[in-house]
Amino acid sequence: MTLRKIRWRKAQEIRSMRKFLMAVPLVLFTVPAAAQQAAAPQADDMNRVMDQGLQHSHVMQTAEYLMDSIGGRLTNSPQMRQAEGWTQAQFRSWGLKNVHKEGFPFGRGWSIQWSSVRMVMPRVIQLTAMPLAWTPGTNGTIRAPIVVAPMKRERDFEPWRGKLAGKVVLVSLPGDGDEPGDPAFKRLKDDDIHKLDRIEQPDVDPAARERQLKRFKFRAKLDAFLKSERAVAWVRKSYRDGKLLHGESFAYRVGDTPALPGIEVAAEDYRRLARLAKVGPAPTIEINSTVKFDDSDINAYNIFGEIPGSDPRAGYVMAGAHLDSWVAGDGAADNGAGTAVVMEAARILATIGIKPRRTIRFALWAGEEQGCLGSLSYVEKYLATRIPANAPDGNDQWLRWDQWFPIKPRPGYKDLVAYFNIDNGSGKVRGIHAEGNVAAVPLLREWLQPFASMGANAVVASPTRDTDHEFMQAVGVPGYQFVQDPLDYSSRIHHSSIDTFDHLKAEDMRQASVILAGLLLQSANSDKTLPRMPLPTQSAPTNPFKYEDPSDD
Amino acid sequence: MTLRKIRWRKAQEIRSMRKFLMAVPLVLFTVPAAAQQAAAPQADDMNRVMDQGLQHSHVMQTAEYLMDSIGGRLTNSPQMRQAEGWTQAQFRSWGLKNVHKEGFPFGRGWSIQWSSVRMVMPRVIQLTAMPLAWTPGTNGTIRAPIVVAPMKRERDFEPWRGKLAGKVVLVSLPGDGDEPGDPAFKRLKDDDIHKLDRIEQPDVDPAARERQLKRFKFRAKLDAFLKSERAVAWVRKSYRDGKLLHGESFAYRVGDTPALPGIEVAAEDYRRLARLAKVGPAPTIEINSTVKFDDSDINAYNIFGEIPGSDPRAGYVMAGAHLDSWVAGDGAADNGAGTAVVMEAARILATIGIKPRRTIRFALWAGEEQGCLGSLSYVEKYLATRIPANAPDGNDQWLRWDQWFPIKPRPGYKDLVAYFNIDNGSGKVRGIHAEGNVAAVPLLREWLQPFASMGANAVVASPTRDTDHEFMQAVGVPGYQFVQDPLDYSSRIHHSSIDTFDHLKAEDMRQASVILAGLLLQSANSDKTLPRMPLPTQSAPTNPFKYEDPSDD
Repeated sequence: MTLRKIRWRKAQEIRSMRKFLMAVPLVLFTVPAAAQQAAAPQADDMNRVMDQGLQHSHVMQTAEYLMDSIGGRLTNSPQMRQAEGWTQAQFRSWGLKNVHKEGFPFGRGWSIQWSSVRMVMPRVIQLTAMPLAWTPGTNGTIRAPIVVAPMKRERDFEPWRGKLAGKVVLVSLPGDGDEPGDPAFKRLKDDDIHKLDRIEQPDVDPAARERQLKRFKFRAKLDAFLKSERAVAWVRKSYRDGKLLHGESFAYRVGDTPALPGIEVAAEDYRRLARLAKVGPAPTIEINSTVKFDDSDINAYNIFGEIPGSDPRAGYVMAGAHLDSWVAGDGAADNGAGTAVVMEAARILATIGIKPRRTIRFALWAGEEQGCLGSLSYVEKYLATRIPANAPDGNDQWLRWDQWFPIKPRPGYKDLVAYFNIDNGSGKVRGIHAEGNVAAVPLLREWLQPFASMGANAVVASPTRDTDHEFMQAVGVPGYQFVQDPLDYSSRIHHSSIDTFDHLKAEDMRQASVILAGLLLQSANSDKTLPRMPLPTQSAPTNPFKYEDPSDD
Repeated sequence: MTLRKIRWRKAQEIRSMRKFLMAVPLVLFTVPAAAQQAAAPQADDMNRVMDQGLQHSHVMQTAEYLMDSIGGRLTNSPQMRQAEGWTQAQFRSWGLKNVHKEGFPFGRGWSIQWSSVRMVMPRVIQLTAMPLAWTPGTNGTIRAPIVVAPMKRERDFEPWRGKLAGKVVLVSLPGDGDEPGDPAFKRLKDDDIHKLDRIEQPDVDPAARERQLKRFKFRAKLDAFLKSERAVAWVRKSYRDGKLLHGESFAYRVGDTPALPGIEVAAEDYRRLARLAKVGPAPTIEINSTVKFDDSDINAYNIFGEIPGSDPRAGYVMAGAHLDSWVAGDGAADNGAGTAVVMEAARILATIGIKPRRTIRFALWAGEEQGCLGSLSYVEKYLATRIPANAPDGNDQWLRWDQWFPIKPRPGYKDLVAYFNIDNGSGKVRGIHAEGNVAAVPLLREWLQPFASMGANAVVASPTRDTDHEFMQAVGVPGYQFVQDPLDYSSRIHHSSIDTFDHLKAEDMRQASVILAGLLLQSANSDKTLPRMPLPTQSAPTNPFKYEDPSDD
């Protein structure tokens, strides 16, 4: 899942629900009569899914190749290109139909060739550090004193004017670190799941959104300021202790590449530099990084494969996960796990040779980490358009996407009758989020019933966001995310340098694959379809009487 | 504390108590009459200790310089040499007397100049890795395929004969990793402390000790085997997940240097290599490390300083911590924290100008991480000798040290009336271990009483080991270790790459400094002295009827 989610999750599990409309109509879309006559499912299909998924699983082999051999898959990087080809080849080898990729404009390919960061004064030590995504390399070795100049807003620039030339600028506040008083690794207790079965009223606060946009755009301003001050590089502190790195950065568009190399330094190493600078002569650091840009194809690609349905008028169901990742680790829990589960569900259903009434489509999205861009392009192309002709270019398009009105449904709007997204790490499936669609609860409950004995029987009302079902939900298409055991996803794995294969749990991955395959099978064959949400319209601010506190910015 | 301790702690907090003799005599050594006439302590001394230690503390500044500016202090490394000089200079600047260093034969100086380990096939990634202490550098770049050949005992060599030439040999079993289901960071609850107030009977098992010695000596055999097979380097897996490194290795003696470079690779990276080797062509890795040996002075040095007592016949009290560390991190919790606390106690007492009856000696030990070698040399030189003339050379001397009999007390044996050791990280002092000396409990309780309001009032019976009071206890000299909140010492900090300053807790460090200073003050001035343990003699095996299981080895 994207960067935004983790912060939201940490703050509170459920509260942020701006897009949820309280007036949920109980309209059930009825299935066309023709569909009722399509091939009935085999009574033992579900048992065959279980057998294939538990006794003959391939999910960990899929995951192993994706994470170990291919590795971290930054959108448009060489590794992502390799993954695009390999996943299609796998789909084809399992007999899926209509296997193809669909491009959308994205930006630059970028990969790290070499990277070394050392403190060389007052003593020599190797620092745990990495280049930030899409920032330039150093073009040889940079050796320069540091200056600690925490800057979060434009007004923080002023005190540093004239003081940064020739310096490596540490732009994060060092802080004191934190200590993990809770277990890093957790499974959900019944009570935890129960708490997810709650819908809080949306907090529609346009000013808060504008502040978020402003923070997002600060990066480019900081880069311009540092360049104008003739700084030589900048350093950001890792937001997790324990020498973990992440490397997220967002300047992926052609023409947006920052002028200066940006480096993430492990929190312990960063704070050591900052302390030394506080008490004595500023330490000197040495950065040597070689990165490679590739603009030969600026499109990113979503990958698709299908098991065709027998009734073309019955619509289709879809499962998806994002194939792309960050590159500090191997993109295992986020979201190689989801990718492998979606691929395994495809393999299971193809292998047992089911003939569903509705087409089952499998989607592996690109650009999720940069704002669910792959699934967004799918929505705009096939489901509903909402970006106006006069919308600003760049990040505004997706950052403001849920604010553009009116939403204009595409002809295929109602064809997608259910979308299941998996992007919460490798933890066991414990149930599914109804995503605020309270009318869908009974049917979801019915479909999950066969998996009660595998620990996955909860249907909880709360919505989730910041992954690839979000923009579907935002136009009223029924897209659902699973409830999964969190394991150590949020505490230390998500986006980090230890997001590697061996933090995935094989039993959980097999369970999730079986459940996803089973849900697809049922939703593809069911006489009933999930009730939809109303087409969203502009929300009214929750508190129209509120004054903005100028110090909030 | 040394490597042995952490394993012991993890297994069980108290059980290992081989050296404790159950028959504790209640003989109280009486203080010579002359001492009774020495200068009485000032009634407000303790308040002045509190004021100096809490309002005018310097402990974190001391710690910061030691960890950040000097850094990790492997015995005889350039950093340790710098620390030897700096700590003496600090002692002198605070007005301590008899500040000096005392050497003992140790071995080679060793430091890392540069280190880079990458996987280059099937893809290029930087691995988290470091050279193992006292192993040679690569003398340029080694680029070779790996082979996973787990070897723990000599009988594991056979299957690999003829298969290792030109290879980098991964000698650890990859395993599956573990997940932290307990909080990494903990403070002791009353109940936890209560559990420490328990003495378990010693388990005297000579065969177990012999097995331990054999395992310890396996390293040299492995190196010889790998050399004879013409392997090019060997790799050990980190024993902690989460990309932590440690770098411990023990071939520090001149002439014992291994033939092959030894590298520790982070668990996640190691297991990735091992998986790739299992499913496909073995990955190729590239190692480039430059290390520096220095044999210009093979002595290691303990550092001493004193506040002289007024009564030369009353003996002395002593506080100590080890100054040396491993070098994956900066040696902060182990044991820069203890060093800074001992130094701060010295500063506090010197600054407030106390005139104690007994001399207060401050000791900063070297070679603790290699087997408490600095404090052992002190014991042999001043307290009691036990190494026989015909003892084997090398590690046997300390590994078997508590088995040599008879113990011959030195003339200074009874002069040391109390030794306080601090080596459990930076956690708040919660009390003190009576170390099996149940007769000492009432007086320790009396001395701790002033600190009850600071959370440090527990006197627990259980013994501790694997740090610098161990060999004192082992000859019947009253040496005590504190009960401290564990924080994240065992879970992730001890010896690791994140043993850095910012995992130290300033409030706890100030509290510990005040308590140590207060205990020294009281024990230096007290009319009473701590009862001693009897001079140990050869223990009888706990189970003389036991047969050895040959498969245990």
